[in-house]
Amino acid sequence: MKFSFKNDYSEGCHPQILESLLRDNLDQQAGYGEDDYSKKAKDLIKNNIEVQDADVYFVSGGTQANLIVISSILRPYQCVISAATGHILNNETGAIEATGHKILSIEKEDGKLFPSDIIPVLESHQNIPHQVMPKLVYVSNSTELGTIYTKKELEDLSAFCKANNLYLFMDGARLGHALTSEISDLELKDIAQLTDVFYLGGTKNGALLGEAIIVNNKILQEDFAFNIKQKGALLAKGRLLGIQFLELMQNDLYFELAKNANQQAMKIKNALSERGVQFLSDTYTNQIFPILDNQIIEVLSEKFEFYVWKKVDENLSAIRLITSWNTNNTAVEEFIKTFNGEL
Amino acid sequence: MKFSFKNDYSEGCHPQILESLLRDNLDQQAGYGEDDYSKKAKDLIKNNIEVQDADVYFVSGGTQANLIVISSILRPYQCVISAATGHILNNETGAIEATGHKILSIEKEDGKLFPSDIIPVLESHQNIPHQVMPKLVYVSNSTELGTIYTKKELEDLSAFCKANNLYLFMDGARLGHALTSEISDLELKDIAQLTDVFYLGGTKNGALLGEAIIVNNKILQEDFAFNIKQKGALLAKGRLLGIQFLELMQNDLYFELAKNANQQAMKIKNALSERGVQFLSDTYTNQIFPILDNQIIEVLSEKFEFYVWKKVDENLSAIRLITSWNTNNTAVEEFIKTFNGEL
Amino acid sequence: MKFSFKNDYSEGCHPQILESLLRDNLDQQAGYGEDDYSKKAKDLIKNNIEVQDADVYFVSGGTQANLIVISSILRPYQCVISAATGHILNNETGAIEATGHKILSIEKEDGKLFPSDIIPVLESHQNIPHQVMPKLVYVSNSTELGTIYTKKELEDLSAFCKANNLYLFMDGARLGHALTSEISDLELKDIAQLTDVFYLGGTKNGALLGEAIIVNNKILQEDFAFNIKQKGALLAKGRLLGIQFLELMQNDLYFELAKNANQQAMKIKNALSERGVQFLSDTYTNQIFPILDNQIIEVLSEKFEFYVWKKVDENLSAIRLITSWNTNNTAVEEFIKTFNGEL
Amino acid sequence: MKFSFKNDYSEGCHPQILESLLRDNLDQQAGYGEDDYSKKAKDLIKNNIEVQDADVYFVSGGTQANLIVISSILRPYQCVISAATGHILNNETGAIEATGHKILSIEKEDGKLFPSDIIPVLESHQNIPHQVMPKLVYVSNSTELGTIYTKKELEDLSAFCKANNLYLFMDGARLGHALTSEISDLELKDIAQLTDVFYLGGTKNGALLGEAIIVNNKILQEDFAFNIKQKGALLAKGRLLGIQFLELMQNDLYFELAKNANQQAMKIKNALSERGVQFLSDTYTNQIFPILDNQIIEVLSEKFEFYVWKKVDENLSAIRLITSWNTNNTAVEEFIKTFNGEL
Repeated sequence: MKFSFKNDYSEGCHPQILESLLRDNLDQQAGYGEDDYSKKAKDLIKNNIEVQDADVYFVSGGTQANLIVISSILRPYQCVISAATGHILNNETGAIEATGHKILSIEKEDGKLFPSDIIPVLESHQNIPHQVMPKLVYVSNSTELGTIYTKKELEDLSAFCKANNLYLFMDGARLGHALTSEISDLELKDIAQLTDVFYLGGTKNGALLGEAIIVNNKILQEDFAFNIKQKGALLAKGRLLGIQFLELMQNDLYFELAKNANQQAMKIKNALSERGVQFLSDTYTNQIFPILDNQIIEVLSEKFEFYVWKKVDENLSAIRLITSWNTNNTAVEEFIKTFNGEL
Repeated sequence: MKFSFKNDYSEGCHPQILESLLRDNLDQQAGYGEDDYSKKAKDLIKNNIEVQDADVYFVSGGTQANLIVISSILRPYQCVISAATGHILNNETGAIEATGHKILSIEKEDGKLFPSDIIPVLESHQNIPHQVMPKLVYVSNSTELGTIYTKKELEDLSAFCKANNLYLFMDGARLGHALTSEISDLELKDIAQLTDVFYLGGTKNGALLGEAIIVNNKILQEDFAFNIKQKGALLAKGRLLGIQFLELMQNDLYFELAKNANQQAMKIKNALSERGVQFLSDTYTNQIFPILDNQIIEVLSEKFEFYVWKKVDENLSAIRLITSWNTNNTAVEEFIKTFNGEL
Repeated sequence: MKFSFKNDYSEGCHPQILESLLRDNLDQQAGYGEDDYSKKAKDLIKNNIEVQDADVYFVSGGTQANLIVISSILRPYQCVISAATGHILNNETGAIEATGHKILSIEKEDGKLFPSDIIPVLESHQNIPHQVMPKLVYVSNSTELGTIYTKKELEDLSAFCKANNLYLFMDGARLGHALTSEISDLELKDIAQLTDVFYLGGTKNGALLGEAIIVNNKILQEDFAFNIKQKGALLAKGRLLGIQFLELMQNDLYFELAKNANQQAMKIKNALSERGVQFLSDTYTNQIFPILDNQIIEVLSEKFEFYVWKKVDENLSAIRLITSWNTNNTAVEEFIKTFNGEL
Repeated sequence: MKFSFKNDYSEGCHPQILESLLRDNLDQQAGYGEDDYSKKAKDLIKNNIEVQDADVYFVSGGTQANLIVISSILRPYQCVISAATGHILNNETGAIEATGHKILSIEKEDGKLFPSDIIPVLESHQNIPHQVMPKLVYVSNSTELGTIYTKKELEDLSAFCKANNLYLFMDGARLGHALTSEISDLELKDIAQLTDVFYLGGTKNGALLGEAIIVNNKILQEDFAFNIKQKGALLAKGRLLGIQFLELMQNDLYFELAKNANQQAMKIKNALSERGVQFLSDTYTNQIFPILDNQIIEVLSEKFEFYVWKKVDENLSAIRLITSWNTNNTAVEEFIKTFNGEL
C-alpha cells in the first residue's frame, strides 16, 4: 500500500473523536442540532472567537457550507466575486449557480483577492439593472493553492468590503492550516472580526465530517437556520457534528492537528529546497507544489500517491503534495529519502 | 433522565458500526465515495435487492435524499404527487420547491397513495401548458403515520405509474421498519422491482447518518452523481457512509434492528390494547398513536418523553410513541407498568 | 363566426391605443422603460393612487408580474399563502415554485381570503426551522371567481398582515372590474394604501398587453428593477407599455372600459335571474356563472363561445361567461334573446 | 432633437405592422398563441426555413428567449459555453444563472466561437462529478460586436457540437442583419439545418416586440411550451406577436428591413474609411465601431446620440453606431457631412 499525499481527507478521524463517540453513544439526545454536545461545542467556538453573539451552525461539508451561506445572503439578482481558483468556481458542479447566483471570476496567480482586484469588477458592473449586482466577496484561507492572507491584507479587504457594501465570506475548509502556518499573523478571533461569515473546516482537519459556519453579521443571522434545513443539511443526529467539534475545539486540538500537517509539509519543502527544487508557489501550509524532473516523479510515484498538478516544460512538472493531521515522520522521511535517492 | 420515545434518532449508532469505524480509522482511502468500504457496501445492497445494474449512492439524510432524487428526475415544469402527510410537504422547509418543483397534495387519512387517489389529480391537470405536469409519485414506506403498503398495493401502484408515464419514488427513511413489520408481505427485492428509485434509511435505523439511494430505472441513472455533488451531498470522507452500510447490510443487521424497534412498539401497543386503549391509526411498525386520557398522559410524561400528537376531545389525546433499534425491554416494561399504574 | 364570451382578451386593444401607437411610432425614444411615455404613464398612475413615492413598473402579463413580485419579495425559505382558486396555484405551470417558493393553499368557496382563513395556517407553521415561513398573502381582486373585496374586508386583511409581519400582494389582473363593480366601495387609492404591492391589469382591460406593478412598501422597492430584467420582462421597446398605460389612465378610460364589461355581464345576469336562473356564485363583475339546463347550453353554444365550467347535476351545468371592454349590446341582447328562445 | 445611433430599438415598428394591427383589431381570436395569425406566421417561418416539423414559439424579448431555451434544454448540472462578449453573460442580470445554470466564458476578440475555442473547455471539465458538464454552445449571429459567421464556420461548429454531444443554440436577435450582410454566405434555411434551436429577432428589426424561437431538434421540442408559460412568457394576446411576424415574414420584409440597416451602416463605414478612419472590428452589419479623435466625437455628439464604446488612447476613442430598419439617408448623410466638417 502506497502512502498517499493526495489530500487531507484520506484517513478517518482523530482517535479522540472516536473515543468520544463511543463514550456518549447511547446517551439519548434531542435531534437536529439541539443536543447538548452541539450546544457546548458552539459555546466553545464563541469563546474562542471572542464573539458571544455569533451564530454557529454545523454542516457536513464545504460545498454544502458554501451554497447555504451564499444562497442565504444574496437576493436573486446579486452575485459573488471570487478568485478564478475559488473552490466554488471549479469544484462544486455549479452548486452556487444552482441556487440562482452568478459568480464573477478574477484571475489571480496566488488565489488571493485584494481591493485592487475587486475595484474593476465593481466599475464594470454599473449598468443597472442590466447586470448582476456584486454583493459578496468569497475568499478561501488557506486558498486552493495553499497561500494565506496576512492580517494587513485581510484588514484592508474587510474595510474595502464594508466601504462598498459588500459582504465578506471566508471559506475556511483549511482555516486551521492557515492560522497555524509559520508565517501567519492572524488569529481565529481576527477572522471573526474581519468577516461577515466564515467557516471552520473539520473534514480536512481531523473530523469525520463537519464544517462550523459562524455568522458574525447580525443582519445575516436572521432566519439562517431555515436555509440549513431547506438545503438538506440539518442532520437528525446533529450530535455527530457536535461531539466532533467539542473534541476539536477543546485544548486546541484543532490547531495542533493543523500545525502537524503544516510542519510535515514544511519538512518536505525544506528538504527539497535544499536540493535546489523550485516550487510553483511559495506556500507555508499543508499544500506544496514542487517542480520535479519527470523521472524523479516516476520514482516517487512507485511508493507514494500524489497528483501531478501541472506540466511545466518537457522535462519538469509540478506535483501537489498534501499532508494531513495524521501524516507522520515515517512517511515524510521516506519521501525525502526516496527523493534523495537514498531508498 | 427520562427515557425518550420521541423519535428513532435519539441515540448514536449500533456499537458494531463504531467498532468498524475504529478498526479502519487510519486506513487511507480515496475520497468522495470511491473508497473500498463504499464499493463493498454498494455490492452488498445490489446483492440484497437482486439487481446487479442498479446504481447506489450514499447521502447524509432524508431531506437531502428527497431533494436530490426529485430535482434530478424532473424537468422544470414537472411536479410531484404526494399524500398530504408526506415528509416533503410538511417537514422539509420547502426543500423540493426550492429546487423549482411544485408538490401536489392529496388528503389521505392513512398516508398511503392508491391509483384511485392519483387519477383525479391527473384528470385535473390537462390544461396544457397552463398547469404543471404530474410526473413523479412520492410515497413513504412506512409512512409518516406508521402505516405500510402491502405487496398487492405496491404492485398496483407501480403498474399504474408505468401505464401513466409516472415515476415511482419511495422514501424509505423507515423502510426497514416497513419490511420487518409483522404484517408485511413485501421484501427488499420487491421494492427494487416496483419502484424507479427508492432509498434505504440508515439514520432512523441504527446509523450515525446515511441513506442509501438506489436508482433502478436505467434512464434515471444517467449522470445522477452530478446532482449529489451539486447539492452539497458528496462527503469527502464517503467511507463514513460506506462503513456504516457495510455493517448494516451484513448478516441482516439492518433488518434485525428494525425488527427490534417494531417489536418493542408492538409490546406497548398490545399491552395498551388489552386495556381497551384505542389508536389513532392501526400501525404495525415502530410508530404507534395511542389515544389516552389526559391524566394518564401527564403521569407518563413524568417518566418518559414523547409527543402529544393530537387532541381528540376534552379528555383524550393521541400521543406518538416511537421506538428505535436500541429501545430495550426495561424502558418498554416500565412504560407499560406506569400506564397500568403499577409504578 | 360565433361571438365569444370565453374571456376578456379575445380582441386586440382599445382603438385609442392604436391611434397613439401610430402617432408616436417614429419618435426615437430611450429603451427599457426609460422613454417619455412610460415616465408620463407612471406619473399618472402615481397621481391616481395618490402616492407620489410609489414605484411603478410595466411588464407584459399576469404570470410574469406574479413571479417577479413574489420572487423579489421572498427569501428562499419563505412562502406564499393563497386561496386554492388563486391563479398562481392552478394556471401558471408552477411559475412561483420555479423561483423556489412554496404556495400554501386555502380552500375557499368564494376565492377570498380573510384573517380567519390565515390564522390556522400560521398556527400550523411554527415548527422552526422544519417548515417554510409564511410571509406573503396573495389575493386577487376581482378573484378568479369574479368576486370582490369590500373596503372593510381589505382593511381587516391589511391590518392583520401588518400585525403578523406578512406582506399583502394583490393580483389586479381584473382590478378595474373590481373597482367599477356596482357593489364596490373601494377606490384605486385604497388599494395603494392597503397593500404592499399590487398590479393594475391592462391585458384584460383593453390593452394589447401590459400590467402595471405598483410597489408601495419602501422596503420592497429596493432594487426591484433588477428582478424585472433578470426574469426577462424588461421590454427593449418599453414605449409599447408606456403608451398604452398613458392612454388607459387618461380621462378614466381604464375605468370606463372595465365598467362596460361589468355592465354587459350584469345585463345578462339580470335577464337570466328574472327567468329564475341560479348562479354558481353571486358576482358583480365581468364574470358570471349561470347554472343552465344542458339543452339550453347546447342551443346557446351554437351561437356563442363560452366554457362549461362545472357539472351541477344530471341536467344542469354552470357555464362561465366573461364580458370585455368591447362586448357590445348586440352580442348581449342576442345572447339573452337566444336564451329566452326568442331567436 | 438629436438623431440617435444608440441602438436599433429606438423607434416603434414598421408601419405595415401597425396597419395590420388596426385592420384585425376587433377580430375575436383564441388566446395564448392559438390565434390564426400566430398559426399562419409559424407556417410561414417553417416554409422559409424549409423545415416543416420545426416548432415555432413567439416570445417578447431576447433575454426571455435565452432563459427559456437554456433552462428548457439543460439538466441541473449542465452548463452553457459562451464567448465572453455573449449577451447572456454581461447584459441579462444573471438571468441564466437564476434558472440554475453556469455559463463558462471564453475570451474572444471578435465574439465568435470556433471548435478550437471549445476544445480546451471540454478538456478542463473532465473531473466528474465535481464540475459542471458543458452541454450547450451559445452563439450570437451577428455577435454583440457586429461580426458574423461564415457558412463554413457554422458548419464546422455544428459538426463539432454534434460529435461532442453539445447542443448548438443561436441567439438571432440580429439574425436578419447577419444574413443580409454583404459578406454573408449563409441563408435562413442553413441556420435551421446547422443549429438545434435558434431565434429570429423581431424587436431589433422592425417589430414592437417579439422573437421567434425555432426548435429544430426533435428531442428538444418535447414539452417546450410548458417552459414558455412557466417563465411568464406566454402572452394572453398572442395575436400581437403573430400579426407582427406574419407581416415581417411576408414578401421578405424582414430581410429588407435588416438590409436597410446594414446598408446605412456601410455608407458611414465607407465614408469614414475613405478618410482613413480605423475601426475596432471589421463589421459588415448594422453595428460599426469607428475609432475617432475625441474632438470629432464631441462635434458629432452635438448632433447625434451614440455610445462612446472604448477609450483607445489619449486622443482616440471608439464609438458604437447602430443603424436600424428606419435609419434614413438624411441622418446618414448628415452624419457623414458633419464628420467631414461640411456641416
